Amino acid sequence: MTDIAMIEAAAARLAGHARRTPILTSPFLDEIAGRRLLVKPECLQHTGSFKFRGGWSAISALPPDVRAKGVIAYSSGNHAQGVALAAKLHGVAAVIIMPSDAPKMKIDNTRALGAEVVLYDRAKEDRDAIGQALAAERGLTLVKPFDDPQVIAGQGTTGLEIAEQATEMGVTRADVLVPCGGGGLTAGIALALEARAPGLRVRPSEPEGFDDTARSLASGRIEINARLSGSLCDAIVTPHPGEITFPINKRLCGPGLVVTEDEALHAMALAFSRLKIVVEPGGAVALAAALFHPDQIEGEAVIAVTSGGNVDAEVFRMALEKFP
Amino acid sequence: MTDIAMIEAAAARLAGHARRTPILTSPFLDEIAGRRLLVKPECLQHTGSFKFRGGWSAISALPPDVRAKGVIAYSSGNHAQGVALAAKLHGVAAVIIMPSDAPKMKIDNTRALGAEVVLYDRAKEDRDAIGQALAAERGLTLVKPFDDPQVIAGQGTTGLEIAEQATEMGVTRADVLVPCGGGGLTAGIALALEARAPGLRVRPSEPEGFDDTARSLASGRIEINARLSGSLCDAIVTPHPGEITFPINKRLCGPGLVVTEDEALHAMALAFSRLKIVVEPGGAVALAAALFHPDQIEGEAVIAVTSGGNVDAEVFRMALEKFP
Repeated sequence: MTDIAMIEAAAARLAGHARRTPILTSPFLDEIAGRRLLVKPECLQHTGSFKFRGGWSAISALPPDVRAKGVIAYSSGNHAQGVALAAKLHGVAAVIIMPSDAPKMKIDNTRALGAEVVLYDRAKEDRDAIGQALAAERGLTLVKPFDDPQVIAGQGTTGLEIAEQATEMGVTRADVLVPCGGGGLTAGIALALEARAPGLRVRPSEPEGFDDTARSLASGRIEINARLSGSLCDAIVTPHPGEITFPINKRLCGPGLVVTEDEALHAMALAFSRLKIVVEPGGAVALAAALFHPDQIEGEAVIAVTSGGNVDAEVFRMALEKFP
Repeated sequence: MTDIAMIEAAAARLAGHARRTPILTSPFLDEIAGRRLLVKPECLQHTGSFKFRGGWSAISALPPDVRAKGVIAYSSGNHAQGVALAAKLHGVAAVIIMPSDAPKMKIDNTRALGAEVVLYDRAKEDRDAIGQALAAERGLTLVKPFDDPQVIAGQGTTGLEIAEQATEMGVTRADVLVPCGGGGLTAGIALALEARAPGLRVRPSEPEGFDDTARSLASGRIEINARLSGSLCDAIVTPHPGEITFPINKRLCGPGLVVTEDEALHAMALAFSRLKIVVEPGGAVALAAALFHPDQIEGEAVIAVTSGGNVDAEVFRMALEKFP
């Protein structure tokens, strides 16, 4: 199980490879949020999301002879790119299983990062069967997107940085808002803060209609989403909280926060004008919660993670037009 | 005169106040540039440009009794915001003289940062006369945009960071491309690198039609621009190189690089998709030179500073539409 020692060990393996993202602030955003707002921009991480941390952590933790055979992952998004680049930099093969109807640009990007992309037909083929056959045949190791202790440890390195950076800035008591899909980033940060900055409390943040974690935290057991598509926040939509991540988040997190899609788009536009960063809709939900739901947050400061920036130009332009 | 000791002293005064911006990279941009490309994103600095460094340096260097009376600056852009925030954080008054036809948003932003904005009519009034009268009346100190040793020292702290960060990344010989208007950032970085990373050579970068520094470096004396408006790169358009900055840049810089407006817009679109940062047209000229003029650059690596990100949403959307 992931613990602070495992997160510290992941941080040692990531040193010099993952980017230490800065903390960004703006007096204009402080005013909207009604308190001091610290933003941790993981959209500036390699491949444009925090997923590189977990990918690197998992791959670097493998025994050398196992790692040498390569890794495999299922993803059409940020996890694919994070694993692909981490594998490439380790000099090992990565096979990424993607649906054949995934956006061409995401397929191209994943290939350009050195991965072998295997496409499957969502309607007719079984993704897991294809993946298991390939893994068995070639001896590939599966890197899961969140329910894996070393992946959680890698994402937790974000929490170590937040603990140090917030303390340097004099913030020792605050809610830390984290975009939450399967809960790997949320759990990793929560474990890191428990040990290194116990006055900082994680609050998972989700889009309306896909608030499985908020509802699960409220009921105390794993709740599922009624649907899995139709959200601009696709990067953080999962069927339900993870089997490994949820018990951690249940123990450590405060109540979940839920924002509308328009609030996420508005947060993207404000991140553009005030922080000069590019955030994708799913990556903007925590910032949106900090800005537009201040009454649900406690304390004189708030920290928001912007978890990714892989957004199509068309969606980004739409956000800027809608919230000028 | 600005020297390395003055830059180091400025860095000590800026510590904990200016942001230490990271170095960003992308394998996709390396491929376009044909070599390893390191980007120093000063668009992520407070107020969205490197100008905060110079403003803070100048204000913090004033004797306390002089500083207490406040400062004054002429600017409709990045310098205004940098000086306004630096003054506010020092708890002193800032008066910013702006043309009455400056974009309303820039006036509003400067006011929101706590400055008193004094508007003048470009056609009928003399900016300098208004400023001098106010300065005399209230004992305000003028903070010049580039031709001031302490401002150059503040901008030079960017160079100290580049020297450290590039060395950590194993880059000790490279051209360092810097967007150049009056030449304060260029001169500051050049002085810092001369002392701390002499294998790194500064190359001023400018937009076509406003390449006064490139022409001045070529002829060896100060050349002027034929016109001063009509460029999207307005943030870095000045009449001619500075009296103080030019001799420094003449001694230390390699030949200037010149890019088209379309190349700057294209670089903005690539910074959006590959680095997840927002860069303004003038701030993108060095990145554009790295990406689109590789034949004019020497070495296996290149470093490009993106100096600012204060761009209207409309212009940004246009760049994304033009270079999808």
